[in-house]
Amino acid sequence: MKNMQCHLIKRPVGEPVASDFDFVEQTVREPSDGEVLVKNLFLSLDPAMRGWMMDNKKSYIPPVGLGETMRALGIGKVLKSHDPKYKEGDYVSGLLGVQEYMTGNAKAVGGLTVVQSGLVPMERYLSVLGMPGMTGYFGLLTEAKPQEGETVVISGASGAVGAVVGQIAKIKGCKVVGIAGGEDKCRYLTEELGFDAAIDYKTSDVNEELRKHCPKGLDIYFDNVGGEILDAALANLAMHARIIICGAISQYNNTGDMYAPKNYLAILPARATMRGIVVMDYVKDYAEAGMQMATWMMEGKFKAREDVREGLENFPEVLMNLFTGDNNGKLVLKVAEDD
Amino acid sequence: MKNMQCHLIKRPVGEPVASDFDFVEQTVREPSDGEVLVKNLFLSLDPAMRGWMMDNKKSYIPPVGLGETMRALGIGKVLKSHDPKYKEGDYVSGLLGVQEYMTGNAKAVGGLTVVQSGLVPMERYLSVLGMPGMTGYFGLLTEAKPQEGETVVISGASGAVGAVVGQIAKIKGCKVVGIAGGEDKCRYLTEELGFDAAIDYKTSDVNEELRKHCPKGLDIYFDNVGGEILDAALANLAMHARIIICGAISQYNNTGDMYAPKNYLAILPARATMRGIVVMDYVKDYAEAGMQMATWMMEGKFKAREDVREGLENFPEVLMNLFTGDNNGKLVLKVAEDD
Repeated sequence: MKNMQCHLIKRPVGEPVASDFDFVEQTVREPSDGEVLVKNLFLSLDPAMRGWMMDNKKSYIPPVGLGETMRALGIGKVLKSHDPKYKEGDYVSGLLGVQEYMTGNAKAVGGLTVVQSGLVPMERYLSVLGMPGMTGYFGLLTEAKPQEGETVVISGASGAVGAVVGQIAKIKGCKVVGIAGGEDKCRYLTEELGFDAAIDYKTSDVNEELRKHCPKGLDIYFDNVGGEILDAALANLAMHARIIICGAISQYNNTGDMYAPKNYLAILPARATMRGIVVMDYVKDYAEAGMQMATWMMEGKFKAREDVREGLENFPEVLMNLFTGDNNGKLVLKVAEDD
Repeated sequence: MKNMQCHLIKRPVGEPVASDFDFVEQTVREPSDGEVLVKNLFLSLDPAMRGWMMDNKKSYIPPVGLGETMRALGIGKVLKSHDPKYKEGDYVSGLLGVQEYMTGNAKAVGGLTVVQSGLVPMERYLSVLGMPGMTGYFGLLTEAKPQEGETVVISGASGAVGAVVGQIAKIKGCKVVGIAGGEDKCRYLTEELGFDAAIDYKTSDVNEELRKHCPKGLDIYFDNVGGEILDAALANLAMHARIIICGAISQYNNTGDMYAPKNYLAILPARATMRGIVVMDYVKDYAEAGMQMATWMMEGKFKAREDVREGLENFPEVLMNLFTGDNNGKLVLKVAEDD
């Protein structure tokens, strides 16, 4: 049985391009003692991948080695198991990699979680019920601690993490303003997700719009994008504002210096806090969070949207959609039928 | 009786200069009902003054109006009192202004605190037992929460706030590294104040020195200066580092954009927190903190140093020493003898 793998062969300079990757056909390795063989069904495409490709920055996880299979979260089906925790036919989520089949020890890949089939579309375990959902849930509730009546502003608001943050903030009784690129995404925020307002950063002055929509300032700013939008948020802080630094997608393909926030000193008079978060820190509470979000979904308070593309061979091109913003909802790559 | 006042007549561009101020001789106003008349003895010269002169930034306190007496903390002696809380001969600290006499309502100037005479030199109520001391005490203990064995790095370390932070961190069992300008100040930190190491930013690569002196990274970075030194600290964070943003003296006279921290995103993998603090938030606990620091001083664990200059008329020139770093210890202006 053949296993197509996508190897990282060059560290991208600026935007990742097809020639940074190589598709290599291997024979599927049989699982040995303690290992499992998983058939990959869906792969998650995440902004974090850009960081995993680099070895020049301290990060929360080691970089992907050159010549190694590109790292990716995914959902797959267990074909063979020599690990008593998994049985044939189980669906699992974890770091399955950009390939058709994953053979390995569950612990060695950072753990595989059995997910239930039939309840929600499988790809949802890569969005709201997966890493982006957990990031939004814990970043907002555990770190930013929203209070009823507070104003919550989110950048990258229609993205996988942003949409979760905004919807939970609404459930908690906050005023929610989302920043996104383009009319469609903005309409999605206000009309589908119930945000109080949306700011289209491509056509408007974000600073000015924030001043208009948040006359009392931002109590919480959840940042997925960095860059000038972060500066606009800093210029509009309320007292004791909490800024969650979740990512900086506007900067990941930067070949020069990172855009540096000119207005950082605004945190002084505002007594504000700026905090970096990494989702893996909350792993022990994932199950509880997943249950809570599933409940909200069943109650109709909470929506998820995935943008499912197809074909392992399209990985490099589809990945780029994350950085151009040319995706609608959580970007997922379907790599095989579940047969 | 004449009262010489120093008025702010121009908002400084870059470094404050003598022509931004005007010395005006007024007649001392008699205190009316509820008011006191105070003879100013010592005035405090603080980096915060630079911010008080500007009206183009949101701040924690309104700017000094043009044509108004320049704001300053000071220590004075009550000459007349129509307020039952103060009696003739009391020594008080508060916002007395850059002038010889202050006539006014204690509440209207933000409160006057009676201080005991004879225990410590009067000017100490403007340093360790005053605003800078409280800033260091609460910024470190309440906000950064140092744990035994942690590494604490302080910029502007030989300044009024920095020296307090470092000494308290030593008392709490931390490893303490101070950043200061010049050999004398560095020697003062290690030889007089017991810091574990000092980095002279004028002659060395701060980033490299931090890597050398803090191999496990910075658990706490207490920032008084901003600029490139902040970036060097950000490049060397330990996991869960706490960055206290107390000031940015390197930037206050900047006429262009504020230096923006390029490395801010380092707080993400480090799960670090960057927090702005303002001393007035802790006013209800000042007395307790003062007592604690006075006790440490009596036990010989804690030193204070004031750099006392003389003459109200020298205010503009002496103020500049703060920004050039040409002061040794808390900069204080003696404006009258206590007779």
